[in-house]
Amino acid sequence: MATALKGFRDMYPPYQKARRDLFDTVESVAQRFGFREIDTPSVESLELFEKKSGEDIMEETFAFTDKGGRDVTLVPEITPSVARMVSSRKDLAKPAKWWWNGKCWRYENPQQGRLREFYQLNCDIIGVNNVEADAEILATAATMLDELHLDDVCEIRIFDRQLLEAVLDAFNIREKEAVRNIIDKREKLGETEFQRELEDVVGADAEQVADIFGQRTSLEHVSTVMDMLPETETVENRVQYFKTLKQLLGEYGVLDTCVVDFSIVRGLDYYTGMVFEVFDTEDEFRAVFGGGRYDDLIGLFGGEDVPAVGFGMGDAVIEEVLKREGKWPREDLETDVYVAHITDEEKTFARELTRKLREEGYTAELDLVGRGLSNQLDYADRIGAELVLIVGPDELERGVVTVKDMRSGDEGEAAVEDLLELIAERL
Amino acid sequence: MATALKGFRDMYPPYQKARRDLFDTVESVAQRFGFREIDTPSVESLELFEKKSGEDIMEETFAFTDKGGRDVTLVPEITPSVARMVSSRKDLAKPAKWWWNGKCWRYENPQQGRLREFYQLNCDIIGVNNVEADAEILATAATMLDELHLDDVCEIRIFDRQLLEAVLDAFNIREKEAVRNIIDKREKLGETEFQRELEDVVGADAEQVADIFGQRTSLEHVSTVMDMLPETETVENRVQYFKTLKQLLGEYGVLDTCVVDFSIVRGLDYYTGMVFEVFDTEDEFRAVFGGGRYDDLIGLFGGEDVPAVGFGMGDAVIEEVLKREGKWPREDLETDVYVAHITDEEKTFARELTRKLREEGYTAELDLVGRGLSNQLDYADRIGAELVLIVGPDELERGVVTVKDMRSGDEGEAAVEDLLELIAERL
Repeated sequence: MATALKGFRDMYPPYQKARRDLFDTVESVAQRFGFREIDTPSVESLELFEKKSGEDIMEETFAFTDKGGRDVTLVPEITPSVARMVSSRKDLAKPAKWWWNGKCWRYENPQQGRLREFYQLNCDIIGVNNVEADAEILATAATMLDELHLDDVCEIRIFDRQLLEAVLDAFNIREKEAVRNIIDKREKLGETEFQRELEDVVGADAEQVADIFGQRTSLEHVSTVMDMLPETETVENRVQYFKTLKQLLGEYGVLDTCVVDFSIVRGLDYYTGMVFEVFDTEDEFRAVFGGGRYDDLIGLFGGEDVPAVGFGMGDAVIEEVLKREGKWPREDLETDVYVAHITDEEKTFARELTRKLREEGYTAELDLVGRGLSNQLDYADRIGAELVLIVGPDELERGVVTVKDMRSGDEGEAAVEDLLELIAERL
Repeated sequence: MATALKGFRDMYPPYQKARRDLFDTVESVAQRFGFREIDTPSVESLELFEKKSGEDIMEETFAFTDKGGRDVTLVPEITPSVARMVSSRKDLAKPAKWWWNGKCWRYENPQQGRLREFYQLNCDIIGVNNVEADAEILATAATMLDELHLDDVCEIRIFDRQLLEAVLDAFNIREKEAVRNIIDKREKLGETEFQRELEDVVGADAEQVADIFGQRTSLEHVSTVMDMLPETETVENRVQYFKTLKQLLGEYGVLDTCVVDFSIVRGLDYYTGMVFEVFDTEDEFRAVFGGGRYDDLIGLFGGEDVPAVGFGMGDAVIEEVLKREGKWPREDLETDVYVAHITDEEKTFARELTRKLREEGYTAELDLVGRGLSNQLDYADRIGAELVLIVGPDELERGVVTVKDMRSGDEGEAAVEDLLELIAERL
């Protein structure tokens, strides 16, 4: 009773402040790229996720029967909810660009980087099916990495479901889903087991197929890799796609953060085109985040097909990467001004001064406990006050206040009427 | 499947933008008053709420059995979680001042102002039991009303559990909880039924008791009302409390928003001192929000008692009040700049310009669809673009761009190298 449930977190202020800094950074990128905030229910009919998510997700839903006997679940992701929202509004200006940041839940065994309750930032571009929209989504993701100072230690590994299918077709492979799963699990299986399982399904071409789906290259050199592919119309079409993508990502200034990686298939069933996953370049952690194009999902909710591309960024792995790199925001409390008093006589003045500072937009605190000056200064230090204003009886008589800079330790007097100007200069 | 569950909401961008404006306003007040953000689990053991919340809340919990067989619930409020967090950390600087804004759930019949999923902003001051902390909480609430422009149409009705008890004691009333419930339901019961039920419990003094608990007065005139109370030590002590509270709220500049109201008892069992509820002065809506002092709750989790005072503001009723008053934030999309191109040749330039604008902090959009100029302008209008930059082949050759002000309709040319400066002036 005295602890949170397994896989759930109590987040105290200094830690939550760092999290808020992280969220502010990525949400700001989404906003400048023209994504608009939406919000969706945290509880949905379980039906919403059936056949719309991968099997893994269905097994891990935080599902339950509600008091009204409905089969519902805490949402494991919001893409199906987004699809429902789009399908029920025909009048949306297209493209609709939406972002969301909130909680998702999965009922899985808590372990490093995996929690039962986590946050996920989602960005989606809805209503356009072309390389320009894909490039905009990838540029959004890359700019987030850039502004988190992770662009040198993370890379976006991009592949394409259509190219995957086309290659498998060229080798006359029918059991595509099985092959996709084997490719997806390559690292987990280990190379020997991977080769064995692939051979079981693919037969004689296994070596060549393994070679193709092991390729990773910069977009600059994509042509070289593409030359090893079987020549079919779809393959050529998708090779052209990657050439255009290279140009566009260059114009967005994010080419260096992106590579083509034939092993990226993504677990979710609903992807239909470009897919990507972000990894730390040392491959120490599981995927930081990922996404892709899902052109068939929205149509499942009735009405016309609406193409879409997007990604979801969980809060767990990115925190681990940021911490490893020393880029995790400072976990501390920040306060602009603490207003201290020496005797009870100055409390009224202190309260009115605090009120004025708050009206001016500063975070300002004052004693609520009835502490003496030295304990007030201790508290001011613990809450990270930058300036302390000390109000005493002599000073008040002379119309001045003592101003103490908590970083430098400098102390001086300032006339009451000059205080706001002085604080504006100092902070 | 194509709609959200009953009592849950899909929130589309223009509506969500208005909600975000509301949240920004109240969260900014909390931050300037020195509250620090925390976050707590959305799923808690049902045990956490047993005996710690009112009966009403227990009946309405969104409770279920999870896949591991645990009796859990979606949180109906976060005060018990806050209490747990405080009790498990002995090293917190006191007072700890915490805020939180997130989802809560209640399994009740959806109706106006009542949803199964809603947001609640919480502010708590932990570790101080005195009138100064109560005044700071009330000033926080009043300043939120002020910054939402609701201070003229809403009032904070304040009472005190100790004064309530003391009055009941003075009348030798033993069944205090019954009387508290009758007072709490006064409006629902109607005056005749209220008097009848009160008489059943209180007997001969019912009329006098009904009179006392019907009093509502400004804090300026609190002495007059207090004069009608029986004279006991506790009563006198609490009368002094209200006199001090009046002085402090005056110093905070929020006295006009506050009244003393003897009918405010609050349903929750855990309150121990000052309680308050915010109402629209026309009493058209149920309580907008409320809170109070809970000095015994944290101790229930083991360790020492820690006093606390706080409030929780739901998002449903405040939206109704804001809408009635015409103060609900505008529901629209906002975009700083849309970069339009005339022929495909300018797309690279448009993309690079958009990138630069986003780097400068502007919300900037460009065509992702391959539309002609007039359709691009239509879209720019739908997403609320303030400025449209039109890039054409002739203009590019001359090193200029057409700048169209979408509000005034004014159009002119600007040199490419002056663009950022010009946009900074215009926006």
